[in-house]
Amino acid sequence: MQSVLTILNAIERGETTPRAAVAQSLDTIAAKDAAMGAFVALPERDKALAATDGAAGPLAGIAVGVKDIIDTYDLPTGHGSPIYAGHRPASDAAIVSLLRARGAMVAGKTVATEFAYLQPAATVNPHDPGHTPGGSSSGSAAAVAAGMVPVAIGTQTGGSVIRPAAYCGVAGYKPSFRLIPLVGAKTFSWSLDTAGFFAATAADAAAFVSRLTGRPLEVEPVDPGSLRVGIYRTSIWDQADADTRAAIELAAERMTGAGATLVEIDEPPALAAAREAHSTIQNFEAGLALGFEYDHHRDMLSDILRSALEQGRAIAPDAYDAARSVARRARHETGDLFRSLDVILTPSVTGAAPRGLSSTGSPVFNKLWTLTGNPCVNVLGIVNAAGMPVGVQLLARFGRDRLALSAASWLESLLAGAEVGAQKS
Amino acid sequence: MQSVLTILNAIERGETTPRAAVAQSLDTIAAKDAAMGAFVALPERDKALAATDGAAGPLAGIAVGVKDIIDTYDLPTGHGSPIYAGHRPASDAAIVSLLRARGAMVAGKTVATEFAYLQPAATVNPHDPGHTPGGSSSGSAAAVAAGMVPVAIGTQTGGSVIRPAAYCGVAGYKPSFRLIPLVGAKTFSWSLDTAGFFAATAADAAAFVSRLTGRPLEVEPVDPGSLRVGIYRTSIWDQADADTRAAIELAAERMTGAGATLVEIDEPPALAAAREAHSTIQNFEAGLALGFEYDHHRDMLSDILRSALEQGRAIAPDAYDAARSVARRARHETGDLFRSLDVILTPSVTGAAPRGLSSTGSPVFNKLWTLTGNPCVNVLGIVNAAGMPVGVQLLARFGRDRLALSAASWLESLLAGAEVGAQKS
Repeated sequence: MQSVLTILNAIERGETTPRAAVAQSLDTIAAKDAAMGAFVALPERDKALAATDGAAGPLAGIAVGVKDIIDTYDLPTGHGSPIYAGHRPASDAAIVSLLRARGAMVAGKTVATEFAYLQPAATVNPHDPGHTPGGSSSGSAAAVAAGMVPVAIGTQTGGSVIRPAAYCGVAGYKPSFRLIPLVGAKTFSWSLDTAGFFAATAADAAAFVSRLTGRPLEVEPVDPGSLRVGIYRTSIWDQADADTRAAIELAAERMTGAGATLVEIDEPPALAAAREAHSTIQNFEAGLALGFEYDHHRDMLSDILRSALEQGRAIAPDAYDAARSVARRARHETGDLFRSLDVILTPSVTGAAPRGLSSTGSPVFNKLWTLTGNPCVNVLGIVNAAGMPVGVQLLARFGRDRLALSAASWLESLLAGAEVGAQKS
Repeated sequence: MQSVLTILNAIERGETTPRAAVAQSLDTIAAKDAAMGAFVALPERDKALAATDGAAGPLAGIAVGVKDIIDTYDLPTGHGSPIYAGHRPASDAAIVSLLRARGAMVAGKTVATEFAYLQPAATVNPHDPGHTPGGSSSGSAAAVAAGMVPVAIGTQTGGSVIRPAAYCGVAGYKPSFRLIPLVGAKTFSWSLDTAGFFAATAADAAAFVSRLTGRPLEVEPVDPGSLRVGIYRTSIWDQADADTRAAIELAAERMTGAGATLVEIDEPPALAAAREAHSTIQNFEAGLALGFEYDHHRDMLSDILRSALEQGRAIAPDAYDAARSVARRARHETGDLFRSLDVILTPSVTGAAPRGLSSTGSPVFNKLWTLTGNPCVNVLGIVNAAGMPVGVQLLARFGRDRLALSAASWLESLLAGAEVGAQKS
């Protein structure tokens, strides 16, 4: 994979230039993307390189994949839907303006599923094209995993960052809710939609976001001896397959072995309830947010999305309000958990990427943490017997993004080359 | 003024039709708007009437002015800026889809100041064209005050609903934060931007929003004997002029006379601090939200906006985070105040609409409540010696919008025809 830190260090040492680094990303896309289907729109090579020559800033030389529900004024933004085929926004999304201002380059628009919901798109998993890359940030995860760009931007409403990161074996970082502006991204659910990042490692993601936002988020050393880790198997542990269960046990074992204190956490009933409330909030808001598309272009929606919007439009305001109350309680309850914990270890996904492209997999282990807004990182390193990545997830208290990233980076180092499930295929 | 309730009752009784009601609004716009400058884009009359013939729903017959920072697919949306002159969005904003789905008609786009900030536009005050209508929802307030439409939609980031409502002498209702979706409205500050409504009375606004959202928000009788009203003069009472001070005393007197219990509230230091934090949050977020416009079209921005964006871009993330902490404390503190109060009475504005069009007036009495997210209603009825409206504001606990509207409706009835400031001009 391309690495943000490697590229930036090489530029700093004068071993390469921003132009050459971006050219390498663009050339890799040109060579590899026909087989991956990660990109839906690309800039003209000459223009992109000329813009890089004129770029200054702490991210000069970094080519970024941008999920296609995020507006770009100079590239079409199709929202993963035929309704918006060829659509040209009048302006850039806030995060796109920001990355350009920092010297980074939009290397292309990455495939999003339809309005970032569950209908699969055509991107394949770089580890095995017979498997889904996950969704909805399918192209962003695959573009990083295939080594085409060092970083890509996605969004998560259910599990759309952590899940594809886990399936594609890359670092996926979902920041604390509203740390990163989503102005100019197509809204599905304003209470849940969260920008996120894919990179080769947690340290790469952290370096990128630090330089993007001006916040001190670079990973720092973790003192294992003082780290309190909660193993959070959830009340839906039965939905985790043998690979995922083994991956959680392995991660726990390695952290204990390195000196961390582990605490078994039983899921509080308020958090189990919040997992259910997620769908009510999501679908109610999507019914309003996509009102125009439903009213004017119903026949161009997938069945699965149309059905979700119809469910959402049938939810009464008081049921929505009740779900929001459940969410508020869940945020308090999660805050309480972190009084005696530094990070929580929990599955990223139910298992490795499912075979086939007919589903993007299940967000069931993600949606609670989208609702609570805590920072989450998919930790890569473990593969199953078939060589497919099996992700585990670390999360930290709301606002403690640097700790989540630092602990994830440390756990990555403990899990490098790890394998689970000898009998699996 | 045109009244939502009068129109809906007449349609229900068969005394008029939705088509005739909408035609009356459109005809009044055609007759009056040249002198007011409230509208920036109008639908074709025949098409609008044909659409009304096909409309069904609880708001059929209601013509709605829509602030020009809110997307409409069939009318240009200029955001009050030459950068977006003639811009045609690809879809309707969520609230526009919703009002059309309920049978209401978009009667036109109402003038917004530049990106809903402080640079004045050309709309005049219907009570005296030599005075500002206030901003940033200038056209929406004036359109209702001039009797051109029964209801208009605006937004408030500082004081952009309550202030123009007060200056124009109409009911202005700023709902609890995020009660109404803002998907498809141009973002200035995602932590502050709030949709709001202008109507002839609080009861009209309540009837409209009830039918729009399906929430029970219609005004209901208030029992004065059990109503606990806090008079909240704020720590910036010296910025209220004699008219505003007299209006607050008069409103308090009338409520006491009718049986309510009044409690004098000294502004808690945490709330005075939050008034300052408002600008930090607003400008930091605007610097990101309008990044594209600043980077690509700096010369087309007004001086006052460009300066605010530059201030915002210079704010460090930790100063922004500190301001958000102040805001969180202010929300808790406001909740605490409402443990022993039902509603708060406080100025809507520093005084009646200033003379001239060189300023839209001061949002200083509004921005705290935009930050806390409480429901607010501008209560009309009082005029000064020059016949200009002087508004007072009632607010209720977060989520208790129906109480805010009901108490405002009751106070309206107590203030009908009231006058302050015999010596003023």
